[in-house]
Order: sequence, then structure tokens, then C-alpha cells
Amino acid sequence: MTLEGKLLIGQQAVAGASEPIQAIDPSTNQRLEPAYAGGTAHDVDRACGLAWAAFDRYRETSLEERATFLETVASEIEALGDTLIQRAVAESGLPRGRIEGERGRTCGQLRLFAQVVRAGEWLDVRVDPALPERQPMPRVDLRQRHIALGPVAVFGASNFPLAFSVAGGDTASSLAAGCPVIVKAHSAHPGTSELVGRAIQRAIAQCNLPEGVFSLLFGSGREVGTALVADPRIKAGGFTGSRSGGLALLKVAQNRAEPIPFYAEMSSINPVFPLPAALEARGEEMAKGFVASLNLGAGQFCTNPGLVIAEQGAALDAFVATAGAALKESAAQTMLTPGIYDAYQQGVARLASHDQVREIARGQVGETPNQCQAGLYVTSAEAFLNDEALQEEVFGSTSLVIECQDAAEVKRVADRLEGQLTITLQMDDADHDAARALLPTLEHKAGRILVNGWPTGVEVSHAMVHGGPFPATSDVRSTSVGTAAIYRFLRPVCYQNLPDALRPEALKEANPLGLKRLYDGRREG
Amino acid sequence: MTLEGKLLIGQQAVAGASEPIQAIDPSTNQRLEPAYAGGTAHDVDRACGLAWAAFDRYRETSLEERATFLETVASEIEALGDTLIQRAVAESGLPRGRIEGERGRTCGQLRLFAQVVRAGEWLDVRVDPALPERQPMPRVDLRQRHIALGPVAVFGASNFPLAFSVAGGDTASSLAAGCPVIVKAHSAHPGTSELVGRAIQRAIAQCNLPEGVFSLLFGSGREVGTALVADPRIKAGGFTGSRSGGLALLKVAQNRAEPIPFYAEMSSINPVFPLPAALEARGEEMAKGFVASLNLGAGQFCTNPGLVIAEQGAALDAFVATAGAALKESAAQTMLTPGIYDAYQQGVARLASHDQVREIARGQVGETPNQCQAGLYVTSAEAFLNDEALQEEVFGSTSLVIECQDAAEVKRVADRLEGQLTITLQMDDADHDAARALLPTLEHKAGRILVNGWPTGVEVSHAMVHGGPFPATSDVRSTSVGTAAIYRFLRPVCYQNLPDALRPEALKEANPLGLKRLYDGRREG
Repeated sequence: MTLEGKLLIGQQAVAGASEPIQAIDPSTNQRLEPAYAGGTAHDVDRACGLAWAAFDRYRETSLEERATFLETVASEIEALGDTLIQRAVAESGLPRGRIEGERGRTCGQLRLFAQVVRAGEWLDVRVDPALPERQPMPRVDLRQRHIALGPVAVFGASNFPLAFSVAGGDTASSLAAGCPVIVKAHSAHPGTSELVGRAIQRAIAQCNLPEGVFSLLFGSGREVGTALVADPRIKAGGFTGSRSGGLALLKVAQNRAEPIPFYAEMSSINPVFPLPAALEARGEEMAKGFVASLNLGAGQFCTNPGLVIAEQGAALDAFVATAGAALKESAAQTMLTPGIYDAYQQGVARLASHDQVREIARGQVGETPNQCQAGLYVTSAEAFLNDEALQEEVFGSTSLVIECQDAAEVKRVADRLEGQLTITLQMDDADHDAARALLPTLEHKAGRILVNGWPTGVEVSHAMVHGGPFPATSDVRSTSVGTAAIYRFLRPVCYQNLPDALRPEALKEANPLGLKRLYDGRREG
Repeated sequence: MTLEGKLLIGQQAVAGASEPIQAIDPSTNQRLEPAYAGGTAHDVDRACGLAWAAFDRYRETSLEERATFLETVASEIEALGDTLIQRAVAESGLPRGRIEGERGRTCGQLRLFAQVVRAGEWLDVRVDPALPERQPMPRVDLRQRHIALGPVAVFGASNFPLAFSVAGGDTASSLAAGCPVIVKAHSAHPGTSELVGRAIQRAIAQCNLPEGVFSLLFGSGREVGTALVADPRIKAGGFTGSRSGGLALLKVAQNRAEPIPFYAEMSSINPVFPLPAALEARGEEMAKGFVASLNLGAGQFCTNPGLVIAEQGAALDAFVATAGAALKESAAQTMLTPGIYDAYQQGVARLASHDQVREIARGQVGETPNQCQAGLYVTSAEAFLNDEALQEEVFGSTSLVIECQDAAEVKRVADRLEGQLTITLQMDDADHDAARALLPTLEHKAGRILVNGWPTGVEVSHAMVHGGPFPATSDVRSTSVGTAAIYRFLRPVCYQNLPDALRPEALKEANPLGLKRLYDGRREG
């Protein structure tokens, strides 16, 4: 399978005409062929035109047709075989096992959404049948279903070249909801993007769907992404990446003539609270688990534990000492891109030079380019409370321990936290009261609260929330991982007295889809 | 019951210290006592402080406790008796029957939300139980529930002094979701607002809830509202009113350090499409129904039919002639405020002076102040397509008929419409194909599509959608009327491996609330 270095617009491969991007193998700093010339305003316009033309047909595909399409995308990705794995490894510097696992997650996610589509709960069908005899006024027949918002702009993330990229979570949930998707590929992995994009193209052709259901654009700067979000035919956006990138696109979405929902998942430092009894009883084991989580994927997870908050004392000192020792042994790992590596170096330098922060340990120094040397630092709660800059995310394997004088100070630090994707409690039975006292605050601050685990590792399931208050995300009402993500791309429409012949299948009185409707306020069994 | 003219902050009545507002009886232009001195930044701060202090307790009230509170609010509003009716009539110029009906709707709405709270579906409980034996990785226990967003800023609307005001839809759905509410009263009906606010205060005291669950602020300009939406303790907003007012507050919500959801319901001209067979068969009856809907409440409904779009010809001419004749007989009705009357006069003058618009009829001239003289105008589809200004809402009993050359031109006009709350089809069996061809476009444009009825009159029920694409609302994903409105003020939180003793009631394994959970992907029966 030869990479062509072209945009994929509907079923066509189109040569770009603006500044090219080219992937770099971060482990060698070698450029990888081919170059991908960027898209132009004309390409954005064509992709949006096709997406809009495909929208009405695609959003009304039957549950079975749409589910089969999602499954076909998964099969086509698997059919790429080792070509995909090799290219993704080369473009990301991530180990082969990780990329294979991520492929499994990506395809599993598509198949899980196929099940969700078939079950049809997302339609949220509500029927209030007419009450012609009601006094003082009769009630008309009212039926509600959810329909797709429209074409969605999806931005590939650097850190999950498969699971949060071209056929990643945002694409899967958009397609499941009935929305055509236009992906702006992340410039770090254009070859991986092309391969997956072609798999989606093939699935569309196999399923006889209109070509505009999917397009894939490349571009070196922000022009293509900005033009995409600004296009009036785009009705929502999904983004995973930096705070500055997410906020810039959010502003574009808000400042349109017609503002649209824009789901940006941005920054999170995922605080960990080791509570006193647990810290006392098993601080050493905890320290090792913490360092393992911190090092996962060179710390390039949205849920990387970048902050540890605990009461000072011998138990915390022992935790820090053990974590420091483990971290010193940590091998350096290749980061995703030279740019991410540079930002990491700057972030660590900023932390290390802070006059209230002391270094506990650094990991092994890298021997090949762009390798992340892990870092562990300590500061006081007072310093943390007095300097917002200490909450800035350092994307990579570095974490900061906050020493608090007592439980009240732990609570004050919790109160001051920005919004997070996750907050972790390490606790034993004797910590229940302390946990109970903290929980309401933690609920204000995070989308997921976890106990005696580590935040890295995000299950793709029904109950998962990968979201949270700003700046973790731009919209606290939703999740970007798990089946509830389908609701991000839907809106309710009510039909009043529409004749049964004209009703969509989901709303017909005979309930041909067998949905558990909310019928006259009662849930059908 | 004597009106005090004070802000209600928690359980206190507090004298304002900024420029006062005073209601005007629009039927006489007489000022109504007392004056309400406006709130200051300090008052906003106090109300927000109390709301935040009340939030954690209020959001964790049991389903029964919260439902009983909503019902107590309804009872306390009813206990105001005729005092409330008289004051609302005086402040709004609306007929007594209408205000009585609106009180019934307001209290019914609170009681319906009490039922919704008790049923607990809004918690959307999802449980993915642990799978310790799963390969290659075990699954942890994951449980999701929805919790309240936080204190909500609600803006009272002029046109429904009860149902969209202090204890109106936004307040009812916020309180149902577990959010404390701070209302910025509409300056047109401060006395009505005070009465209802005191009823809510009494319900809070009776139910032993923290006082910060509700506050009521007054203010003459935009300062109080702006300060309220900007306050970091406010986590969402609800607004019904003008496009300029809604957009200004939306910008405040978006430009905060932490942006928040802001639900503004703004402008809609609610197009009506009489399809050919129906127009031919019953154009005369249809014209009368149309004029009755247009005149309801002096045309001051969000769902007032401000646009009629049909194919030209004898049938449309007859419809227009009949509607014109009915409209000529329409009595003038008092509008809500002198300001709304002035804006109406300007809007009609703008339309009447348009060189492509011709007047068909005007209603009766008023004999008392601020009376709305109905108006019916006609223009061509070509003129409409060439001038966006012809889509501007004229708030009051004026409508514009668009004559189209053929069905294709009807479709082009539909394509060009802005987002709407409602779109109405008048159709007979022979119109099914025409309706089928239009429906996808109408679904893009409106939150509610109705057949052979009139858009005024919005049922408060489960299937209702009172929402729609921008500029009808600022957020197409929701409704402001009906039980689904509770979802506007909720966010998902996931708990991973939280011990059962610490889980909220809704998430305990034994399911003490008897919820129909999504358990391991299957809906419990």
C-alpha cells in the first residue's frame, strides 16, 4: 500500500496546494515520506459541500445500515495489517505493543458504537399521545426524537494516533449519531491518517453510502482547521489537544454567524490524593504504582498524574523517597514529536527554576533524540496556593508533590484546583471520613473520580466519563470517551400531529424499531 | 400582602441601592407602586455566595425531598390568590383569563418536574461492573450519574410574567436538577416577581432547605445581569428575550475565565407553509385560524406566526383576502410595555416602507395607550431571498406572506430561513409528497414541526421541544419547555472503584432508589 500524500475529499484523493507537512520519526529525527501538501480554502469548501450533500441521506440510514458501516470501518482498519502498525510506530515513537493495543481499542470502540446505534436508546423517543377530550384544552399528539446535528469537524490528537485521531472517539461518536465527518489530520502522523482515511473511504464505498460522509484534510498551520470550523455547513466540532489550540478553535466556533457546539478536550493535571491511612499503610507500593502511571507512554496521556496532594510527615516523605528512587531508574522514552519534546523541556525547566520548588529526582537521560527524562518535584501548599503557574500542565512524565500542613490545607488546595478530567483518591477504610469530606469538592472539579487505581487507562464503556470542568474541556456536559459521547452530536426535534405515514420509523405509533419509548410519561418495558 | 420593593437575597429582603425600576400599567401608562431600587455588585456577590453555600446540600437532597419542595413552591404560588393575578394583570396588560391560565401552567410545570425528579431517569445511572478476570486487562468498576451544574442565573421574560419568569420553566428545571437559582427579574413586572419570589422563600423555609437555594435581584440596566453571569460561582444561565439581550449575555458567559452553558431563547418568526391541496380545499378556514393565532396575546408569543410561505395563485389570493378581512376586524390589544409597543411600531413601519412589500390589511386602531394594531403584508419570494432584513422578527401581531412561483421556490425560501422554534405545515393527504420533500429542510431549521395546527400554544409535556437552531436559541441541543429541560443543568460524573459505603444512593449496588439503570450495557426493566 503506497502512501500518496494527498487529501481525501469524498472518494477522491486530491493533491494539496499549500505548504506541505511531513512526518518525522521522533526516535531518529528522520523525515518520513511522502510530504503532504496542505489543503486550501477551496478544499475545505469541497469537503463541506460533499458533507452537506451527504447529510440528509446519512442521518436517515437505518440503525442496521449505520451499525454495519461502523463495523465495516473497523474491519477495514484491521485489514490494513502491519502496514498501519509500522507507520504509526514510526510516526509516533510509541512502542509496537502500545500501537497494537490502540488499534484494538479503536476498532472495539467502533463496534461498541455499532451496538449503541442498534439499541436505539440515543433516539430518546418520547410520545405524548393526543388527548382530544382533555379539559379545558385538548392535547395534540407530540413525538420527540433526536437527530444528528450536521457535519462535524474532528481534529486528530497527537498522543493517540489511532484512538483519538482519524477514526477515533470523536469520529466514531459523530458517525454513530448520523453526522458526516471531516477530519483535520494531526500533522505528526499524516501517513497513519491517510491509511485510516482510506479504510473509511473503502467502508463508505462498500456500504453504498454517499461519499461526503467522510473527508480528510491536511494543513501545516491553523488555516485549514479555522476555515473548517468557520464553514456554515459544519454544525459541531471535536478537538483533543493543547489549551491554546482548543481555545482558538472554540472562539472560531463561538464567533460564527451561527455559533456551534465545540468540544475541546484540553488540559488536565489529574491530581492524586493519597489519604493518611493509605499513605501510612502502603506508601511504598503506592509510590511505585504512581511512577508506573506517570511514565506510561512517556507521560503523554490526557490523564497523566501531574500532581500529588497529601499531608506532610514521615509517610509522605517515605512515599516521595520511594517514588524518587523508582523515577531515577525510569528509562527515557521517545516523545511524540520534536515540538512536544521542546515544550516538555521548557515546562520542566520552568518548574525546576521556581524558587519554591525542589527537585526530588530525574529519570534516565535519553540517548536518542526527543527522549523524555522523567521528573519529580515538591512544593508547599502555600507556594501552590500563591502561584497559579504551578497548575500549568507539563505534558510528559513530570509530577509535582504538594505538601500540606493538615487535612484543612489539603481541602484548600482541592478548592483551588482548576477543572480536571480525573481526580484520584488513594485510601483505606480508615480514610473514609476524610474521603467523604473531600468528595463534594472533587465532584466540582473532575469528570471522573477514582479510588485506589491510577488515572491513566480509560475504559471505553457505558459509564465512562472522559470530560470535566473547564479547562479540562470546553463543555462540562459531556464525555469524549464511552458510549454517552453519542449525545454530543444530537439535538431533539418534536413533531406535532404529523401523520403516521410521514413519521420517521422511530416515531411511528406501531413502534417498528421496538424502542423503549417514554410513552405518555411512562417508560415502555 | 404589601409589596416592599426590595431584593430577596436568601431569606432576607434587602433594599437596593442603585437606580430604581418601577412597573407601568401599559393600559394606562400609570406607574405602579412601589419602586424597586436596583441591586449592586455587592448584592450579586451576596446572592452568589449564598447560592454556592447552599449548592452541595441542595444538589444532594433526596428525590422525595426535592420533589416535595417543587410542589410546595406551586402551592405557595397558588396561596397568593388574587393578589398575584391582579398585580400580574396590571403589570402586563394581559387579560385576567390569560394570567389565570398562566398561573395554572406555572404550577403544573413545577408539579410535573416533581414527578420527573421522583422518577429519577434524569440521573442516567450507568454501571459497568468490574470484570476482574477479563483478558488482557481486567475492568474496574465504573458508575456514572448526573449531578447538578451549580447555581444558575435565570432571566425573567417580559411576555410570560409567570410561566417564563421567577418560578417559570428555567427556574423549575434548574431546581429540579439540583441547582440553586438566582433570578434577575424582568423590569416590566417587579411586583409579580416579588410576590412569586416570596412564595419561593416560604417554600424554602417550610422545606428546611438552605436559604441560598433562591434569590431574586432587580436592576434597571444590564449591570446586575452581567455581573451575575460573570460571577465564577454561577455555572449556567437561562434567558428568554430579545436577540440583542440574549447575545450580550451569551458573550459574557463565553468570555468568562471558565465559560459556562448559557441557554438564550431569542428570536423566531415561526413560518407557516400552507401546502397547495390544503390551501385549495380550506384556505378560508385556515386564514381565520392563522389570524386567531397571530392575534393571541397581542402577538407577543415566541411562537407567533410571523411568516406565511406558499405558492402564488388564486388559492393563496383567497387566503390572503380572507386573512386580511379577519385582521381588519381584529381589536387592538394592549402590549406588555411602552418599550415593546414602540419597537413594534418601528418594526411595522420598517416593513410597510419596504419597496417590495405591500400592505394587505391593518387591524383596529387602539383607543388606549400601547395598543397593538395588527398588520398583514405580502412580498415576493425573490424580494425575501434578496433581503435578509425581511426575516427580522416584528414582535407583535404582524405577519408577512411570501408568494412563491412554484414548489421549487418554496423550497428555496425554506432553505434560506434562519433557525426557528417552530415551523407549521398546513396540509391535506394530497400534500404528502410536497411535505415529504420539505421535511428534511424543516428539520434543519426548527425544533418543532407541526401539522394542521398553529404554533402558539406550547404544551408542557415530555415530548415537547421549545428550542431550535440559532438564532431561535443559543444552544440547539436542548429545550426550555417540557421535562427534557432538566438535562440542561446536569453533567455526568464517573466514579471508579468507589467503595459502596461512599457511593451516592443512586449508585449503590443494591439500587435502593429502584432506578432502571444501564447495567453492563443492558437497561434494567
